[in-house]
Amino acid sequence: GDAKAGRQKALQCQTCHGLDGVAKIPEAPNLAGQQEGYLRKALRDYKTGARKNEMMSVVAPALSDADIDDLAAYFSGIPVEVKAP
Amino acid sequence: GDAKAGRQKALQCQTCHGLDGVAKIPEAPNLAGQQEGYLRKALRDYKTGARKNEMMSVVAPALSDADIDDLAAYFSGIPVEVKAP
Repeated sequence: GDAKAGRQKALQCQTCHGLDGVAKIPEAPNLAGQQEGYLRKALRDYKTGARKNEMMSVVAPALSDADIDDLAAYFSGIPVEVKAP
Repeated sequence: GDAKAGRQKALQCQTCHGLDGVAKIPEAPNLAGQQEGYLRKALRDYKTGARKNEMMSVVAPALSDADIDDLAAYFSGIPVEVKAP
């Protein structure tokens, strides 16, 4: 996917997920640095209904496959450093 | 939940999710620093079947509610630093 286009699309996601991929509401997951394939699958499943969520089941169907790939590329590409637990 | 008990329980999760919460296989999500409530809900949904996954639908039903709370406490407590995108 195209991360630059994804960032543009992510403007619609930032209220809950943050443009930096750090969740702004407790229910939303952090997306920064998440696995690209996992993000793609999550969006696809919300789009097909294989996975349901009050918000995402409304948002995802409006996304094209290209949007999904671009958003996954964008959020997975946000650099994250995990400190040893 | 009790993060120390969660770390013990997480020994069973590390093959895919890593003890550090950094996924070891492409399909598995990173868990380090994820929102605690989101992790709890994901595990609960896999346990009740509200959410399905080839692996998690087998793993989650074996978890007690306490295990779920402890695992969520453990993985969400792993410090993560997000770099500005």
